[in-house]
Amino acid sequence: EEQLEDVDTTDPYSHDPSRHPVYKVNSLKPFNAEPPPEILTDSYVTPNDFFFKRNHLPVPEINPDQYELVIETPNGTKGGKPLQLSLSDLKTRFPRHEITATLQCAGNRRSEMNAVKTVKGLDWSHAAISTARWAGVRLRDVLEHAGYSENTPNANHVQFEGLDCDLTGTSYGASISFEHAMRKDNEVLLAYEMNGNELPRDHGFPLRVIVPGVVGARNVKWLGRIVVSAEESRSHWQQNDYKGFNPSVDWDTVDFSTSPAIQDLPIQSAITDPHPGQKVTPDFEGKLTVKGYAWSGGGREVVRVDVSLDGGKTWKVAELSGDKQKAGQAWAWKLWQLSVPMPHNCKDLTIICKAVDSSYNVQPDTVAPIWNLRGVLNNSWHRVQVTVDAH
Amino acid sequence: EEQLEDVDTTDPYSHDPSRHPVYKVNSLKPFNAEPPPEILTDSYVTPNDFFFKRNHLPVPEINPDQYELVIETPNGTKGGKPLQLSLSDLKTRFPRHEITATLQCAGNRRSEMNAVKTVKGLDWSHAAISTARWAGVRLRDVLEHAGYSENTPNANHVQFEGLDCDLTGTSYGASISFEHAMRKDNEVLLAYEMNGNELPRDHGFPLRVIVPGVVGARNVKWLGRIVVSAEESRSHWQQNDYKGFNPSVDWDTVDFSTSPAIQDLPIQSAITDPHPGQKVTPDFEGKLTVKGYAWSGGGREVVRVDVSLDGGKTWKVAELSGDKQKAGQAWAWKLWQLSVPMPHNCKDLTIICKAVDSSYNVQPDTVAPIWNLRGVLNNSWHRVQVTVDAH
Ligand SMILES: [Mo]
Ligand SMILES: [Mo]
Repeated sequence: EEQLEDVDTTDPYSHDPSRHPVYKVNSLKPFNAEPPPEILTDSYVTPNDFFFKRNHLPVPEINPDQYELVIETPNGTKGGKPLQLSLSDLKTRFPRHEITATLQCAGNRRSEMNAVKTVKGLDWSHAAISTARWAGVRLRDVLEHAGYSENTPNANHVQFEGLDCDLTGTSYGASISFEHAMRKDNEVLLAYEMNGNELPRDHGFPLRVIVPGVVGARNVKWLGRIVVSAEESRSHWQQNDYKGFNPSVDWDTVDFSTSPAIQDLPIQSAITDPHPGQKVTPDFEGKLTVKGYAWSGGGREVVRVDVSLDGGKTWKVAELSGDKQKAGQAWAWKLWQLSVPMPHNCKDLTIICKAVDSSYNVQPDTVAPIWNLRGVLNNSWHRVQVTVDAH
Repeated sequence: EEQLEDVDTTDPYSHDPSRHPVYKVNSLKPFNAEPPPEILTDSYVTPNDFFFKRNHLPVPEINPDQYELVIETPNGTKGGKPLQLSLSDLKTRFPRHEITATLQCAGNRRSEMNAVKTVKGLDWSHAAISTARWAGVRLRDVLEHAGYSENTPNANHVQFEGLDCDLTGTSYGASISFEHAMRKDNEVLLAYEMNGNELPRDHGFPLRVIVPGVVGARNVKWLGRIVVSAEESRSHWQQNDYKGFNPSVDWDTVDFSTSPAIQDLPIQSAITDPHPGQKVTPDFEGKLTVKGYAWSGGGREVVRVDVSLDGGKTWKVAELSGDKQKAGQAWAWKLWQLSVPMPHNCKDLTIICKAVDSSYNVQPDTVAPIWNLRGVLNNSWHRVQVTVDAH
């Protein structure tokens, strides 16, 4: 999440696309923005115009007619020459596959961590998460076409290189394990469509990786090149970023080699409506309607969301909605809502939510014990304070 | 976890095996017992004599020469007759497969939940968890031999029936999903050996199911019969037990059909040494050595254990030990230890541990918000209070 400084003579961001004005912009160059939280629970699938945007670099300009995906082939196979596939090759030579999947930035809800003690990173609120219907081809099919199989020696990781790059020519990069890539049920996609449209430029036009259940950072956009390797990607973002640490580790003591790169994300939930500081009014029955999202990584399904208005002493179960998903392939979130009686004579109210996934993983109570210097992986109970207008 | 009452004339438990006197016995009939916690961290693999024991019914007496495992076959295949396999058939007709796997009772650490508010269940402390080297045959191989494939219609669950039964003839039973059973990487075993010996009677002699990463209750002992079915096991233990609920659900309001049966277990850790109430003495450097275990279900690996002596304000990272395991197949625990400077002039000390798994799942801070009426799934931070003998 490094930010490049503006260059006077030529702004590498001048060709970035235009964006909907509704976004809360956390960084303009590179563009990083989240929608108002309440938009997230307006529809199960997030409209492309409101899907959170997390760019590390300028948006590349790619001519789809000249675009070629480069895939390094295994030694000895096909003479070692890289395979090149045009968009048309991808769309016609491989079966189309579609999934509904939620993507979440590792920094979602960083602002709450930042409030405990300053962290390094963009100050995301709780809307760096969105859901779309993605269409493309299975990465597995493309790798097999390139000559890889489960028996390929030293095939341990699949590295993805973006066509976005900095002024020195270094492009964005990340990797996932080869085993994860090859497992059919994992449904890793090279996606060319988002919610029935071609990928928007901000989301990786013309091709991006979708690794459902895995942190946004591995879902490489503007995919240019695929390399199968013995080791993980050497990129900054795989090696020295997007990792979790003990809360007592600081920038003087951190050793990035000691923590694993974030892949699957843990159970998460948040309240989208009302929003922090809102003045709420009970309905004619004295009730308040609370809404939010809940999601877990690794294909684990959300099985319950609990809501408390008394600081966590008592909890009510929220009503969940969302597509039915197969066990172990629950890539998309559940939306939830609850109509809850307001306590009498209260002026200030804190609403808390917490979720449970199909492995009965739960969210931790507080943020300080999971604080880390990069401000990633905040999945503590979400708390929203509101004021009450009792008429 | 129902307990049968003694029958005057004939005690169904009179043929139970003898047990090592070191166990803390939580129930004698059926036998439920855990070793002293500090024994768990004496060795990576728990000796058979000290492995926790959780029986639901009397231990059956089985003649290994007459034993036959019954496997119902798919309709139409082999005339619909059940397949019967002797121990010798199992050992000679299928490849032997070995894994090191930790088993944990869903009720491990129930006593801490019970201290918050009374729950229904045996009062397990924090040693209802142990690790062994299991050898046997892959369930998948046996199911394929019986005629099942990924295309078998209505094959959604695999039910296991034990040969242990109550006075009405009802046997212990549980199920896992067919998909879970068939996935090779899940390494579900029909085990006939435990740590190089034949299975002890208390652990399922002559054959038990080992579902690594999954709650003990599905690891059916004294396996008698396997049934592949469209629905889950109808047993009490699958349907009306071993499920989690919101802490506000009580016995008047509980509806067991609303929660999923526990399968994969969440991230867990505990302190085994010192034990609660122990008088500890700092060493010549003023340090205390703390030991424990950490484990996560679903093949997720433990990546870090944090220890705090100041109520969770600061945390040190413990040293982990354990076998190297493949990603996604980390079935066994990590043992951990930390030599930590004791605070000066303290008489009472609370030691806390919490662990993180490879999906960056963490343990919740406190037990009350995950309290449930059956007292299962307690994976809150483990706290051990000791008194300090400062010489
Ligand atoms: Mo991110
Ligand atoms: Mo259990």
